[in-house]
Amino acid sequence: MGQATSSCQRFLHYAFDYETPKTLVVPSTAVGVVFRFTQLLVLLYLVGYVCVVQKAYQDMDSVVSTVTTKVKGYAIINGSAHTHRPQFGDVADYVIPSQGDKSFFVLTNMIVTTNQTVSHCPEDPQPSSICSEDSDCPAGLSVLRGNGLCVNFSNTIQTCEVISWCPLEKDTGPPEPALIDAAENFTLLIKNSVTYPKFNFHRRNIMPHVNMSYLKRCEFNSTTDPDCPIFRLQQMVSDAGEEFKEMAVKGGVLGIVIDWTCDLDWWAGECNPKYSFQRLDNNKNKEVAPGYNFRFAKYYKTPEGEESRTLIKAYGIRFEVIVIGIAGKFGIIPTIVNLGATLTFLSLVPTVTDWILLTCTKKRHFYSKHKTTHLRDEDDENKESMTMGTSYGTQ
Amino acid sequence: MGQATSSCQRFLHYAFDYETPKTLVVPSTAVGVVFRFTQLLVLLYLVGYVCVVQKAYQDMDSVVSTVTTKVKGYAIINGSAHTHRPQFGDVADYVIPSQGDKSFFVLTNMIVTTNQTVSHCPEDPQPSSICSEDSDCPAGLSVLRGNGLCVNFSNTIQTCEVISWCPLEKDTGPPEPALIDAAENFTLLIKNSVTYPKFNFHRRNIMPHVNMSYLKRCEFNSTTDPDCPIFRLQQMVSDAGEEFKEMAVKGGVLGIVIDWTCDLDWWAGECNPKYSFQRLDNNKNKEVAPGYNFRFAKYYKTPEGEESRTLIKAYGIRFEVIVIGIAGKFGIIPTIVNLGATLTFLSLVPTVTDWILLTCTKKRHFYSKHKTTHLRDEDDENKESMTMGTSYGTQ
Amino acid sequence: MGQATSSCQRFLHYAFDYETPKTLVVPSTAVGVVFRFTQLLVLLYLVGYVCVVQKAYQDMDSVVSTVTTKVKGYAIINGSAHTHRPQFGDVADYVIPSQGDKSFFVLTNMIVTTNQTVSHCPEDPQPSSICSEDSDCPAGLSVLRGNGLCVNFSNTIQTCEVISWCPLEKDTGPPEPALIDAAENFTLLIKNSVTYPKFNFHRRNIMPHVNMSYLKRCEFNSTTDPDCPIFRLQQMVSDAGEEFKEMAVKGGVLGIVIDWTCDLDWWAGECNPKYSFQRLDNNKNKEVAPGYNFRFAKYYKTPEGEESRTLIKAYGIRFEVIVIGIAGKFGIIPTIVNLGATLTFLSLVPTVTDWILLTCTKKRHFYSKHKTTHLRDEDDENKESMTMGTSYGTQ
Repeated sequence: MGQATSSCQRFLHYAFDYETPKTLVVPSTAVGVVFRFTQLLVLLYLVGYVCVVQKAYQDMDSVVSTVTTKVKGYAIINGSAHTHRPQFGDVADYVIPSQGDKSFFVLTNMIVTTNQTVSHCPEDPQPSSICSEDSDCPAGLSVLRGNGLCVNFSNTIQTCEVISWCPLEKDTGPPEPALIDAAENFTLLIKNSVTYPKFNFHRRNIMPHVNMSYLKRCEFNSTTDPDCPIFRLQQMVSDAGEEFKEMAVKGGVLGIVIDWTCDLDWWAGECNPKYSFQRLDNNKNKEVAPGYNFRFAKYYKTPEGEESRTLIKAYGIRFEVIVIGIAGKFGIIPTIVNLGATLTFLSLVPTVTDWILLTCTKKRHFYSKHKTTHLRDEDDENKESMTMGTSYGTQ
Repeated sequence: MGQATSSCQRFLHYAFDYETPKTLVVPSTAVGVVFRFTQLLVLLYLVGYVCVVQKAYQDMDSVVSTVTTKVKGYAIINGSAHTHRPQFGDVADYVIPSQGDKSFFVLTNMIVTTNQTVSHCPEDPQPSSICSEDSDCPAGLSVLRGNGLCVNFSNTIQTCEVISWCPLEKDTGPPEPALIDAAENFTLLIKNSVTYPKFNFHRRNIMPHVNMSYLKRCEFNSTTDPDCPIFRLQQMVSDAGEEFKEMAVKGGVLGIVIDWTCDLDWWAGECNPKYSFQRLDNNKNKEVAPGYNFRFAKYYKTPEGEESRTLIKAYGIRFEVIVIGIAGKFGIIPTIVNLGATLTFLSLVPTVTDWILLTCTKKRHFYSKHKTTHLRDEDDENKESMTMGTSYGTQ
Repeated sequence: MGQATSSCQRFLHYAFDYETPKTLVVPSTAVGVVFRFTQLLVLLYLVGYVCVVQKAYQDMDSVVSTVTTKVKGYAIINGSAHTHRPQFGDVADYVIPSQGDKSFFVLTNMIVTTNQTVSHCPEDPQPSSICSEDSDCPAGLSVLRGNGLCVNFSNTIQTCEVISWCPLEKDTGPPEPALIDAAENFTLLIKNSVTYPKFNFHRRNIMPHVNMSYLKRCEFNSTTDPDCPIFRLQQMVSDAGEEFKEMAVKGGVLGIVIDWTCDLDWWAGECNPKYSFQRLDNNKNKEVAPGYNFRFAKYYKTPEGEESRTLIKAYGIRFEVIVIGIAGKFGIIPTIVNLGATLTFLSLVPTVTDWILLTCTKKRHFYSKHKTTHLRDEDDENKESMTMGTSYGTQ
């Protein structure tokens, strides 16, 4: 029973006796100042860089966003002699697709080939297509489907005949100036709603304080009207450092960047979108695939029931609404992690100061003698020795 | 050589002698309990909050997703007297675009203007367009392209003439009830495949156990059929807290959120999508740009070869499939980082307990005397002093 | 005044006296080797795993990307006897949508129903539609809108009459081989520009050194031409482990993954896109909703002004350009955090070594006697005792 009590006591001692390091207080002001100063540096890093600059105490989340757009405007076609199209058009004619996606194309220039039907016609004169007899024209699909005949292209030139949508498109480059550069006065309404799912945060780019009458007359301007969600195409292009009339000729891609980067902590103020514009296609290196164009067709039926089409090579500006954003909000985990890391560095300060104390001070032997006790291998269990010389401790 | 041996020995001592702090065991149960209790608190935070609640031991990755959709259904047009369109339509008529994007529009209401050609016609009577003589009508582009003439709009009113697609659209607001509110019975099949690239994890929303016969008859229901990827439009709108027939009149935007937030650790069970629905356009503030509509045109050629168009102002519901998701899986780096941060806090516990030991206990002077040795400036290298009074240590 | 001086001195002592633990140097090579070896292990983890393998010293950012595409090519329709469409087509006919989105569809097979008008016609014979008298045919919308009549479908079969776009589509499955499998020779140009906003890093998939003449003749090949942004459709499908001619029949979804995962530190070399291809629709389980198809219509007006349409059930390959990427760049915060966590583990090494020292060594009682001082409860403030026995310290 005495044994049991003893065991129990030993356990209690083991569990609840408090073991604490023995310390030595060194009254060296120089070392003390170095110690405090280093601590201060680490604390300044924690407060200044980690908290204020990097906001490393925050959890992060990426934006989830929905965008709808609406273009408004009317335009007249320049130099309608170039084309058989009507002289007037609206967004139903010029915006593709029409349903208001976050990426859409505004037609500014075009090459129109009307009344195409699938039939046969001579190719345009090119070194590879000029021929003098049928044997110069291999049948089969090379670029177009040749049928093996050599026919008159004009009175003087013969070219191979092909089966294709005829007449072939005459692509002599886009007209200059652009046919529909009046599209610069179209306006664009962007409706953008964003969510940060982790923080259950929802917001729209049309602010709650905006009313119908303001929306009817306002126009975005980065300095005077930064909250208005209505943009004039010409203004966006010029904010991106480009010239609309020039860009309209060969087309291009314009990014409308909506930046929702936000600090959602309550002391950080409002979370508002910032708009910026940049040209996304490479127009520096003019030679490599410049501009933006594509071909589309409108299909008709002739009164005889035959299908014909109008082929349009469309040049224009593709607008891409790009919503970016990372939100931060105070979080316990990142706070603990960053605090922990900094405290670890704080706990390195004594190691450094010890090294200075035992290496660089005049009284280093004196301090070392009191701080460090050296056991000797030959010491017996009942003997004890304090070395007097330099200490080669490891820690 | 004795010198070399000595240097070598000194290096070995420096490298492999083990330096360890001298400690003092204080048999104070009160302090011991405080110490153990604080340690316990920190461990509980680590296990409970960091591991169980926040799963901070996990690496995170964001979802990469592909969505294709397919709408099925037939609808009859209400009150076809309003329109020259046929009384019947299917998804080829009512879903835009038709190719099954993750964002698509279902036509529910429309204002149709048929047989427009580019010509000239009088504007609708408005304060700005009513005129009594030609000089009231400036030529040039104001809203439409005026040609400077004042013509009869009706027997009693004269308005300015414009060059435009004529006849002009008569926009008197969308018909009520919506013409195609039968679209509420359309069904939507969503095929969604997701990837978490960092974890090489792939999954589809059509589960491996689902077979063709189940897919043919099932319909999503958040309680009874949460895995079925086929949704009735009406059900989705009502799950979002809206009324389909009401939303169909002026249109709107409905978000179909597929949440793939998953715990990919093997002990965490299945990773399945959760569907939810919410209206994304602001319908609270009714005045500001309500609903969702756009204009598109179908182009025809008259037998004489002239181009005409049918302009449709389309109201309807735009569905946006929004796939969100963050997956977590055990990772060594976050585990080490969070464990390290917690251990750092654990290493703060002795500091706090020391402070209590030397400040709050009755025997504090006794403990302090044994724990702390004060060197005095006047101590010589051969003398030693232990201060008896209060300790003002810094650590 | 002596009092004030004393207080001031006490404060200075408190602030600038340096407190350092007293240590004991144990000349046990075994323990020293264990200590150094454990330290080495932790440092190897830090350098090897954290820095080299995981690059945990880096800040991360997710890619923001813009994609435009352009398909080129001509195709002849196989077996044109099946259809009333012309025998020849180009991308304006076969690519939907035509404007070069990052997701687009290439038509490879189709079922064409021409000259549909809204009228009434007998349903196709099916168990549910075969009838012998009008009472077998309920009026109203079942699948189609029945009008309650039972009419002759052929000389031998009577079916219910419906109001619909007539004639009804005869969907007997897609033609084999696919009508436009020549689309395998279409080429695709992808223009992709990416941004890592956090690092202000911009790049395009068309490299600065690429010139027009290379772009005109090059074709992507994962081994010989990995930088060329022009892809042959057939090559992409086969890189994904599929057969184009087989996939063309029922359609499918092909993902073009552009991976911009990059190390942006200056010593890490170039950041270039890596292309890969994979089929995204589930073709393993052939029964469940196989392939990819949708219906669209072309609208015409008859000379009498009546609307008719050509309904096309389009089978084909939907290409999805998926841009993924996470960039890392040296950041102070993650470096400090990971360094801190590792240092914390480094500070655990002495705890472990102490345990070994006091538990596993032969001289453990001798070491313990010198390392640990036990206070006894009965010790008075003026007495001091050093326990000789085993130590049960807690730390």
